[in-house]
Amino acid sequence: MQLLSSLTIDRTNKQAIYLQIANQLMGLIREGILPSGYRLMSTRQLAILLNIHRKTVVQAYDELLAQGWLESQTGNGTFVAGNFPEIQPQQLGENHANNIKPNRTAGFEIPIMPHLNRPVLLSRAGLHLDDGFPDARLAPLEELSRAYRSQLLTGNSYSRLGYGDTQGSFWLRQELSTYLNETRGLKTTTDNILVIRGTIMGLYLVSTGFLQSKNNVVVSELGWAGANSNFLQAGANLLTIPVDKYGIDLDALENLCRKQRIHLLYVTSHHHYPTTVALRADRRIRLLQLSEQYGFIIFEDDYDYDFHYESKPILPLAGADKAGMVLYCGSFTKAISPAFRVGYLVGPANVIKHLAQLRRIIDRQGDVILENTIAELLQNGVIQRHLRKSLREYKHRRDYFCELLGSRLGNQVEFQIPDGGMAVWTQFDPQIDLVSIAKKALKMDMYFSDGSAHQQYSQIINTTRLGFASLTLQELEMCVDILVKLLNK
Amino acid sequence: MQLLSSLTIDRTNKQAIYLQIANQLMGLIREGILPSGYRLMSTRQLAILLNIHRKTVVQAYDELLAQGWLESQTGNGTFVAGNFPEIQPQQLGENHANNIKPNRTAGFEIPIMPHLNRPVLLSRAGLHLDDGFPDARLAPLEELSRAYRSQLLTGNSYSRLGYGDTQGSFWLRQELSTYLNETRGLKTTTDNILVIRGTIMGLYLVSTGFLQSKNNVVVSELGWAGANSNFLQAGANLLTIPVDKYGIDLDALENLCRKQRIHLLYVTSHHHYPTTVALRADRRIRLLQLSEQYGFIIFEDDYDYDFHYESKPILPLAGADKAGMVLYCGSFTKAISPAFRVGYLVGPANVIKHLAQLRRIIDRQGDVILENTIAELLQNGVIQRHLRKSLREYKHRRDYFCELLGSRLGNQVEFQIPDGGMAVWTQFDPQIDLVSIAKKALKMDMYFSDGSAHQQYSQIINTTRLGFASLTLQELEMCVDILVKLLNK
Repeated sequence: MQLLSSLTIDRTNKQAIYLQIANQLMGLIREGILPSGYRLMSTRQLAILLNIHRKTVVQAYDELLAQGWLESQTGNGTFVAGNFPEIQPQQLGENHANNIKPNRTAGFEIPIMPHLNRPVLLSRAGLHLDDGFPDARLAPLEELSRAYRSQLLTGNSYSRLGYGDTQGSFWLRQELSTYLNETRGLKTTTDNILVIRGTIMGLYLVSTGFLQSKNNVVVSELGWAGANSNFLQAGANLLTIPVDKYGIDLDALENLCRKQRIHLLYVTSHHHYPTTVALRADRRIRLLQLSEQYGFIIFEDDYDYDFHYESKPILPLAGADKAGMVLYCGSFTKAISPAFRVGYLVGPANVIKHLAQLRRIIDRQGDVILENTIAELLQNGVIQRHLRKSLREYKHRRDYFCELLGSRLGNQVEFQIPDGGMAVWTQFDPQIDLVSIAKKALKMDMYFSDGSAHQQYSQIINTTRLGFASLTLQELEMCVDILVKLLNK
Repeated sequence: MQLLSSLTIDRTNKQAIYLQIANQLMGLIREGILPSGYRLMSTRQLAILLNIHRKTVVQAYDELLAQGWLESQTGNGTFVAGNFPEIQPQQLGENHANNIKPNRTAGFEIPIMPHLNRPVLLSRAGLHLDDGFPDARLAPLEELSRAYRSQLLTGNSYSRLGYGDTQGSFWLRQELSTYLNETRGLKTTTDNILVIRGTIMGLYLVSTGFLQSKNNVVVSELGWAGANSNFLQAGANLLTIPVDKYGIDLDALENLCRKQRIHLLYVTSHHHYPTTVALRADRRIRLLQLSEQYGFIIFEDDYDYDFHYESKPILPLAGADKAGMVLYCGSFTKAISPAFRVGYLVGPANVIKHLAQLRRIIDRQGDVILENTIAELLQNGVIQRHLRKSLREYKHRRDYFCELLGSRLGNQVEFQIPDGGMAVWTQFDPQIDLVSIAKKALKMDMYFSDGSAHQQYSQIINTTRLGFASLTLQELEMCVDILVKLLNK
């Protein structure tokens, strides 16, 4: 009885009481306080001693029996086992434990890869005019949690939780095919879809699977450094073309094509990054023609197709691609939140097969549970309803934010109200030192990008993206208050 | 009243009743049956008509109000909205919808990458002597589901569900550091750990981040084709050394080192793949010395450290690595199930930082929710308890299976009882045609690998891995019954 008197129960602890008891008994056995062969008091006695229900003690004993710490002899009681299941590992060499410290530095050289050095536009400040992220507070998290649970626990666990298809869950590819065909006018079957973990992975797979060293890749200037890093990693040469208010300049592209073989063009057709302009319909048709004529792959990054507020969204290039030149990429980053790493790469079936093979040696497969969770939410229309609701909400936020920017900062900033997306491309007066303002704002618990991430090439700009979607109207007002204060100091 | 008379309720449908109503109303509006400006009957009236609770109708109307299909005029009722939120996208070109079919073939060339062609050892048969997978039926799925829910729903959603640290959740790195130091004698801090999605990703990152074309990589023969594919993808030359019953042959390794610069050695030290032998402690110390002397990186793939049944497991090379030469890799694939894509790469802090930068352009970041879920289960000891329980269970299964193999197939197979891991490396009589037997077994709903996956190099073997861990004793017996039947035909 005395040996067990040290057992305590902490009812404020999140851990179940039976586990608290089991863990303490395990400790006593490990320390040798309860020796091998020791006969434990009955569950009834211990329940009385601890003033808890007997079932709880039975649960604790059962746990320890299952783990092999205890042995039961029918009619005779419960004993501490003879051979403990905890195996003490065999050490290598002498005084190993004392000699070794966590390694700070490798005994070999680290290759220099300058294209991987990029600032992270991220902060934990309470207010955030971010790069254009969604508001996770609107996301259908409760439904997601329920669907995850059901995908995790229902059915044959060997096939459900074993290795799966590198191309992605078949169910999700079915749902995505329907969804993309209906919303974007694509013509896909499940063979045209590779489920990926996000646009970044799509870019990586296409760069690694199709580009060779010294291949020419055309991107816009301004553009997205994240895509550029991927092309540089594959050893490609980057060539740039300008952007105007109707999207990328196709005369400039055709000039490049006449001079050299172009292997791939990267385009954010619906809402150009970072400037938010949409590629005009006639340019899209010409771009497809150029692609066929000069044989370059179009990587169409349609990162926020679902969020278009004015008139009609324009169907992706991929939907009008007869020749099999377009690889189309999107994800649920903007539709739900960046934490849910599910996206899709759409292309000709032989491309998808090739890239799935490549993906297998990079990441084996996606998260089948999460993929089926998303499939369930698409099938039940939960995601579609969420998109319609958030589209309306983000439109309110865009209008309110642009109204505030115009009325309170009209002398210091210039911007176009974006037709879609989650950010306003905002040019500040050249006199304003954005780097210093952003630092001061951070001290007031507000983050915004100082625009330096967009200034990597030749143009000198004083412009940045102000993301409005992740904040309520009231929070947007607080942000503008801070900007007004800082800009008028 | 008549316009709404088509509404029906299906109580057998999983979809909530208010959503059934909302979806049908949406359909009527979309089809123009309920025109813009139409005044809906009151929620009370509709509830009586449909014989349901009024609250359910209120919920349906609220849903449609939120989505913008309806408009409410205070004191006057609820109306079909003037501008529908569903935006019809703008099409490109003419007759687009009729001309385009799903693309089977790209308009550009697919590069040939023969090293990516590998058979998938996977089947959905009811019985499976697999490659050595765990039994997901034993996994703490209920706890996992609860922890996932709590990580998903609790706290500030912007920081929780926004972009996160490419190196992995800080919480998980803390828990992993403690766990790895305690169970494997490693000396790590959070700076030494990169959370990855599995061993495959660890191999890919190290190959891409440290190898250049024509670098020499040493692997064992026999070995794991999955690792080899990664080294070949990086452009490396593969050199092979033999394996005996104490692990890889270090004399052969030293001979190679004397002749040429070796950049990396790949080793499955604890239970060699596919042969299951453990690398003897003295060879481990010599391997570390050779690595320092000749300057090659050791990639230590410790895929199933937790499952060692005899005497003591041997601590990893990584724990005795003073010079910063070892990169250590493991995952929860064997500990929980392949579906949970969380693993760890452990190495010097500057290596981890370098590889995290590389990972950012491949996969941006891990699944933060899942990472924190695993962290919670490690912190609460759920995973540790699960490991102890399954260790005991798998030991039973190993013993029972080896007993069956020996007693019922002793004349036709040879094997060593493995000290650990989840598979028995089983050599079949040379007269037996494994390919044909495996095909026949599949017709009897039993899968096993015919061994061809292990026969890629010079040796001709008639040997395969028979995984015992994913089946109960009864299921193992059924498998052996089938084998006996097929081998004695």
